[in-house]
Amino acid sequence: MESIFSYKNPEAVHTERKKQGMVEVMKTKGKQSVEYANPPYILGEASIVGQKEGEGPLGSYFHEICNDPLMGEKTWEKAESAFVERACNLAISNAGMRREDINYLVGGDLLAQLMGTSFGVESLQIPFFGIYGACSTMGESLTLSSLLVEGEFAKSVLAVTSSHFAGAEKQFRFPLAYGNQRPAAATWTVTGSGAVIIGNESCLTGRKKTAASGNVVIRGITVGRIVDYGIQDSMNMGAAMAPAAASTIAANFRDFGVSAEDYDVIATGDLGTVGSRILCEMMEEQGMPIGKKHMDCGVQIYDLQKQDVHAGGSGCGCSAVTLTGYLLYKLRSKEYRRILFVPTGAMLSPVSFHEEMNIPGIAYGIILESR
Amino acid sequence: MESIFSYKNPEAVHTERKKQGMVEVMKTKGKQSVEYANPPYILGEASIVGQKEGEGPLGSYFHEICNDPLMGEKTWEKAESAFVERACNLAISNAGMRREDINYLVGGDLLAQLMGTSFGVESLQIPFFGIYGACSTMGESLTLSSLLVEGEFAKSVLAVTSSHFAGAEKQFRFPLAYGNQRPAAATWTVTGSGAVIIGNESCLTGRKKTAASGNVVIRGITVGRIVDYGIQDSMNMGAAMAPAAASTIAANFRDFGVSAEDYDVIATGDLGTVGSRILCEMMEEQGMPIGKKHMDCGVQIYDLQKQDVHAGGSGCGCSAVTLTGYLLYKLRSKEYRRILFVPTGAMLSPVSFHEEMNIPGIAYGIILESR
Repeated sequence: MESIFSYKNPEAVHTERKKQGMVEVMKTKGKQSVEYANPPYILGEASIVGQKEGEGPLGSYFHEICNDPLMGEKTWEKAESAFVERACNLAISNAGMRREDINYLVGGDLLAQLMGTSFGVESLQIPFFGIYGACSTMGESLTLSSLLVEGEFAKSVLAVTSSHFAGAEKQFRFPLAYGNQRPAAATWTVTGSGAVIIGNESCLTGRKKTAASGNVVIRGITVGRIVDYGIQDSMNMGAAMAPAAASTIAANFRDFGVSAEDYDVIATGDLGTVGSRILCEMMEEQGMPIGKKHMDCGVQIYDLQKQDVHAGGSGCGCSAVTLTGYLLYKLRSKEYRRILFVPTGAMLSPVSFHEEMNIPGIAYGIILESR
Repeated sequence: MESIFSYKNPEAVHTERKKQGMVEVMKTKGKQSVEYANPPYILGEASIVGQKEGEGPLGSYFHEICNDPLMGEKTWEKAESAFVERACNLAISNAGMRREDINYLVGGDLLAQLMGTSFGVESLQIPFFGIYGACSTMGESLTLSSLLVEGEFAKSVLAVTSSHFAGAEKQFRFPLAYGNQRPAAATWTVTGSGAVIIGNESCLTGRKKTAASGNVVIRGITVGRIVDYGIQDSMNMGAAMAPAAASTIAANFRDFGVSAEDYDVIATGDLGTVGSRILCEMMEEQGMPIGKKHMDCGVQIYDLQKQDVHAGGSGCGCSAVTLTGYLLYKLRSKEYRRILFVPTGAMLSPVSFHEEMNIPGIAYGIILESR
C-alpha cells in the first residue's frame, strides 16, 4: 500500500490552497451553527421501547415493544445494552445495509462511563466515538454523525442512544425497591433505545423501501452551550434544561435567520410539562414565540394522566425513540416538511448532586426536512 | 439576516455536485483512518499537573505545577474542574487567542457524567461536545476536533481532558482514607489537565511565538474499535488496554501503508509496564514490531522506582499532559519529526466491575508532525 509520507508535498498543497483563498472558506453559519451544502440523509432508523412506552399514545409508531424490562438479562445495565444492540442492528437492517458498511458509530447514554452503550455496541465492531450529553445525547450524536458525513469523512454513520427507567433511578435517585414518593415536577425515564443511520446521497441507491418511504435529510445543526440557571433539584430537571433549550433555539433562529414560522414543529427532548411552560415563556420574553409550534417528546410519549408519570418522560431514550418512531414517520410521510429537533440534557451526576452543585443544561438543535 | 430556507435550491446543488462526481469523493483512508489534505495546526497547548507529576522525570516540561491537590476547592471533583478551567484558559492564551475565537470545545473526563469537564468548561461558554473515551479521551477529542477543522466546520477547536488521583480512586476503587494495598500491576491516576487548541492555517497569523516555536500539525487520525480480551481485573488495566492499542496501531499501519520505521516515537497513553510489554509482544507476533519506537506516557511520567507508583501513571490526564508538556515540546523543537500518539482507554465502570463484566479497551491514533 502507498504510504502517506511519500506521495505528495503537503507544503505545496497548502500554498496552492492558500492561493485559491480556500483556507478561509468556512461552512459555519453564524456563531454556533452549520448549514449543510449536501444535507446528509437519514437512511434508516429503529426505535425499541419497553412496555410502558408501548402502552402510551405513541405506542403504534415504535418499531418494537419489549415487555420484559430485563430483556432476558440479569441486570438493568445489561438490559439497556440489549436494547442498544437491538436498535443498532434493526436500524442497519432498515437502512438496507450491513454493519460492515457503516464507517463510524457515535453513541452514549446516561450511565456512568457509558456502560449501556459500550457493552451494547461492542459486538458491532464499528470504529467508535463515545459521547455524553445527558438526555441531549441523541442531538449530540446526530450532530457529530452528520458533520462526519457532510465533511466527507464517512459515507454512513450510526448514531445511537438509550436509557432505562430502572437503571437510571438506581444511578441517579433511589433504587426501585426503596419505593420513594415522586414530586409532581419529576419525570419518568424512558426505557428504550433509538438508532439512526446517517449517510450521503450515494448510500440511497438500492435502499430498502418502507411503507413511509419519503426521504429525510439533516439540513443543518446548532451546537449548544452549557447553560446554568442555578437549579439544584434533581426532581425538577425540566426547569434546569429549559434555559438551555431556549438558548439553542434562539441561536438557531439567529444563525439561520428564521423563526418558529419556518418550522412545522419544534420538538424539545424531555422538558416535561413544567420545563415546557418555562421554555415557552422564555422564548415569548425574547420576542421569539414558539408556543404554537412547540411539542415536547417527554409530554407526548406518555398519557400523563393515566400513566402516572407526573411531568412526563425523560432520559436519552425519550427524544431518541420519539424521533425514530414518531417524528421521522411524520417526516417520511410528508405530514411534516421541516422540524427543529432539540434534545435537552441536564448535566446531573449523583456526585455533583450530593455535593450540592447546580444542574447545568445543554441542548442541540437539528433541522430535519422531508424530501 | 438571510434565511437558509429561501436563498437556494438544494436539489440543484445536489444535481450539480453529483454531476461533478463529488458525492463519492471521500476523505477516508483505509477502513478506519482519515488523512488530512490540510493538516490542522496545534496552535497552543497547556499542561497543568499536581505535585507528584511535577516531581517526576517530566516535571520541567509542564506549564504549571499545582502543589495543592484541592486547588483551593472543597472537593476532589471541584478541584479537577479547576485544573480543567486553568488548562483551557492557558491553552487559549498560549495560542494568542481569546475564548470568543474558539468555535467548539470537545472534552471529557473519567468521572461519571463528565462532572470534571462540564463544571470546568462552563465559564468559557464555548459550544460544547462532551465525549467519553475513558483514558483515551485526549485521543478522541483531538480526533473530533481536527475533523471539525479539516471539514471546515470550525477555524479553531479546544480539546481538553483531565483526571485526578483522589477523585478517580474514590469513584473507581477505594476512598483514599481506606488505605488499601495496591498490587504490582496497578497504575497511579495522574492529577492534571491537558488542553490543546487546534486550528486551520488562517489562525497562524499573529500567533504568539514561544521559545520552541516550531509548528505542529495533525497529519491524520485512526479511530479505534472496542476490543475485549476478557480482562476483569480493575487493578490491571494495562492488560485490558494493550489489545486495543495493538488493534489501532495495526490499523494505522495498514490504512496509511506505514510501519514503525516511519515514526520517531509511538507513544501509548497509559499501558504502564505490564501493558507495554503485552503490546510490544502482540505487535511482534503480528509481524509489525514497534519495540524500538515505543514509549508509554504512563511509564515516562513518574520515576517508577522512587515514586511508588507500581506499573506507572494512568487516567485521561496522563497522556494529555505528557502530550501537551513533553511530546509537543519535542515536536516544536524538531527533535521529533513525526510521532503516532495513541491514548488508550479502559471501558471500566464501578457498576460494570461489581457486576463482574469484562473491561473492554479502546485507543485512538493521531499522527503529529513538526513543520
